[in-house]
Amino acid sequence: MAYQKITGDVLAQITAIVGDAYVISGGQDMQRYSHDETEDLRYYPEVVVKPNTPEQVATLLKLCNDHLIPVTPRGAGTGLSGGALPVMGGLLISMERFNNIIQIDEANLQATVEPGVITQVFMDAVAEKGLLYPVDPASKGSCFIGGNVSHGSGGPRVVKYGTIREYILNLQVVLPNGEMIWTGANTLKYASGYNLTQLFIGSEGTLGIVTKIVVKLIPAPTQSALMLASFSTNDDGCAAVSAIFRAGIVPSALEFMERRGVEWVIAHNNIVFDLRDDVNAFLLIEVDGNNMDTIFGDCDKINTVLEEFNCKDVLFADTAAQKEELWRMRRIMGESVKSNSVYKEEDTVVPRAALPQLIKGIKDVGSRYGFESVCYGHAGDGNLHVNIIKGGMSDEDWNTKLKDGIREIFELTVSLGGTISGEHGIGLVQKEFMPLKYSELHLRLMRGIKTVFDPNGIMNPGKMIPPSPLKGE
Amino acid sequence: MAYQKITGDVLAQITAIVGDAYVISGGQDMQRYSHDETEDLRYYPEVVVKPNTPEQVATLLKLCNDHLIPVTPRGAGTGLSGGALPVMGGLLISMERFNNIIQIDEANLQATVEPGVITQVFMDAVAEKGLLYPVDPASKGSCFIGGNVSHGSGGPRVVKYGTIREYILNLQVVLPNGEMIWTGANTLKYASGYNLTQLFIGSEGTLGIVTKIVVKLIPAPTQSALMLASFSTNDDGCAAVSAIFRAGIVPSALEFMERRGVEWVIAHNNIVFDLRDDVNAFLLIEVDGNNMDTIFGDCDKINTVLEEFNCKDVLFADTAAQKEELWRMRRIMGESVKSNSVYKEEDTVVPRAALPQLIKGIKDVGSRYGFESVCYGHAGDGNLHVNIIKGGMSDEDWNTKLKDGIREIFELTVSLGGTISGEHGIGLVQKEFMPLKYSELHLRLMRGIKTVFDPNGIMNPGKMIPPSPLKGE
Repeated sequence: MAYQKITGDVLAQITAIVGDAYVISGGQDMQRYSHDETEDLRYYPEVVVKPNTPEQVATLLKLCNDHLIPVTPRGAGTGLSGGALPVMGGLLISMERFNNIIQIDEANLQATVEPGVITQVFMDAVAEKGLLYPVDPASKGSCFIGGNVSHGSGGPRVVKYGTIREYILNLQVVLPNGEMIWTGANTLKYASGYNLTQLFIGSEGTLGIVTKIVVKLIPAPTQSALMLASFSTNDDGCAAVSAIFRAGIVPSALEFMERRGVEWVIAHNNIVFDLRDDVNAFLLIEVDGNNMDTIFGDCDKINTVLEEFNCKDVLFADTAAQKEELWRMRRIMGESVKSNSVYKEEDTVVPRAALPQLIKGIKDVGSRYGFESVCYGHAGDGNLHVNIIKGGMSDEDWNTKLKDGIREIFELTVSLGGTISGEHGIGLVQKEFMPLKYSELHLRLMRGIKTVFDPNGIMNPGKMIPPSPLKGE
Repeated sequence: MAYQKITGDVLAQITAIVGDAYVISGGQDMQRYSHDETEDLRYYPEVVVKPNTPEQVATLLKLCNDHLIPVTPRGAGTGLSGGALPVMGGLLISMERFNNIIQIDEANLQATVEPGVITQVFMDAVAEKGLLYPVDPASKGSCFIGGNVSHGSGGPRVVKYGTIREYILNLQVVLPNGEMIWTGANTLKYASGYNLTQLFIGSEGTLGIVTKIVVKLIPAPTQSALMLASFSTNDDGCAAVSAIFRAGIVPSALEFMERRGVEWVIAHNNIVFDLRDDVNAFLLIEVDGNNMDTIFGDCDKINTVLEEFNCKDVLFADTAAQKEELWRMRRIMGESVKSNSVYKEEDTVVPRAALPQLIKGIKDVGSRYGFESVCYGHAGDGNLHVNIIKGGMSDEDWNTKLKDGIREIFELTVSLGGTISGEHGIGLVQKEFMPLKYSELHLRLMRGIKTVFDPNGIMNPGKMIPPSPLKGE
């Protein structure tokens, strides 16, 4: 695609659309828009713009479409796959000013929000009304709900409540030509043509820009219990996961942490935890509902299962503070690793019973390539985050050979019936691995869909779909 | 599209692919493939073929694609929107021999099934293992799971468990050119490119043919309670629906029936029911779980809500037989109406709090156009089935003027934030109403997607998407 640079004339038009105060075309302020949370990658856009109405977005997109200027939409910049990196330069459209919760409709248990609302802010607003929006990625305190939509985000409670796909009813989107549609209807059921709402979820800003989001809410459970189970092996911990479901229990969270992750958290954070020598894996298990007797009954059944898998110890959180402390340990694990090492994070997902094989395989790859890894994640969903730590690896091995190791991890994931990413998306950094999962025919279908929405290829170019081997990109 | 007829030569090739016994090209046996459950519509295919392997389907599709022969895929023929009617003649591919449950994977709570498995047969097979597949349309005893996928089917338990979209993990599909893909992965989370699984769900056979289905299962709840609440007005009954959720309860079913529907059932079926004169609307409410105390607690809370909405009476089903009898009354309502009248059925869906307005509006339209209607459906989802009965309407009014009345019903539905179909699909009979909901731009996107998968337009032509106003079809 022969993209064009942003000329002085186009810049003037951009400024006229949103006003001086909301355009950045150089200087220090550019920096924060040059990276997200993906490794240490940096790419600078030519211009950053911060619209706050769908109409402004429409005018901006039409302008860029007419001038073949690449557009990168950006939420909070918390992405882990490089989806918000403006790799082709061009215009970066920051959605940070779309930060209104437009309506919480208690009669229909729906809400309409703008994409730049922080996930936690939205969760708190609906919680005040006794309602639950259960899609809470670890970054919920800073990520935007629009970014969550674009990545098909999950989080720990997917295991009971489902991913964001099950909570998005309708999207207002602006297409690259500046036209606007609602993708569906504000209804719980929808059998009226191809489901464009579902197509936009997880499309990583490659089809258009989401400007309003209609969300399904559910009554919030009033009670919960949290337990931390420890095991001497990853195998035992992982194997217990399937067995809990087989016992008829659907926990509201079922998280896996390996010993190394807990060590890392203890070393780098203000967390007091008695880490026994004979323990190598943990499951953090939450059960929720409206009746403590039922919840305790479920916990008893879980305990029985855990014993069958050689569980060493079960710590039951007695107070809200204890619960929060255990959750904090899980949530800051990624951050602890990343803030204190050079790292790469991969987001693998497999059918849940394949988790022990996956972890064992990852450790094997690590020992062959000479890297340490810290694994944790949403075991109930078979979704494992793998933090690869540079440690003593040479720069050369890190920059060249490691890629083969990552490839082996993904090959293993796919061979176990899994896929490249469960919730972090493909973005920039996983794009090259897509052919491990998809045939060229399959990728061609994806490219075809992209072209229907974005014939000029201006939307988030260089992301998600690898270029055709036939003609380059 | 300049479709071709099936020549003797092509028929010979079709026969060579599947064998003599599985081809019908004339005679009495053709009849059952000329209709589904949509009104009294009949269209004959030129040839019916019954493959039983994905490879046979692939060879058949490639043959038709090369010869521009229209292909209509058919499940059990229980559809209510004419999706399986071979309106352009051509080849009808019946999936009835794809009737194997390939695997029930208890470790992962997944199953792999062929599309021609009867929904109830599959539900029973997983129930034997203590598992639940909760997508049970009223036709579950005869419909195929493949048809359910193609229509994005729901049923009464969507209100708690979600539609089929939340249970389909992966699909093996054959594309019109004879190539085969798996649309996704057998994982509970998936953020790896455009979600083709979700795109195929509800695509009504217009993109390709589904040959294997990977389904998510959940632990089956062991207990349930069922109550039938009666109201003097539709308004009160419908208004209670939202309030039940606001009280923090998520019932496992929440069905609405109007008096006329119950009368119809009593008149035409062997059901004993004491229908009081002052009662005009009913809610059938089911709560499930694993603990009867919790369930009874929920029922108490529901009772309190019902009283606020002038509930006349609550009948609590005490035995399994009573439960089955109440459910049977609800399930045979559509059948009762249809077997004993000339009818048309529309499948409206709105945000649930808009139900009273919707019903009132439908009755208004009916009195203006002179038709009676019987309304019932999944009130918890805002999904109302409207059976329009010919009754004393003249043939001329039925065949010409009625269409305007139906259009008014859909206009009302859309104006209330709803859409044309919640779970029956668009198929043939609702196609002309699509522009009430979608702009031409939106329809153009749908046509574009169709073309990516089916450039020759052979897959289920004449369905779901109205032709472009620019060039005809």
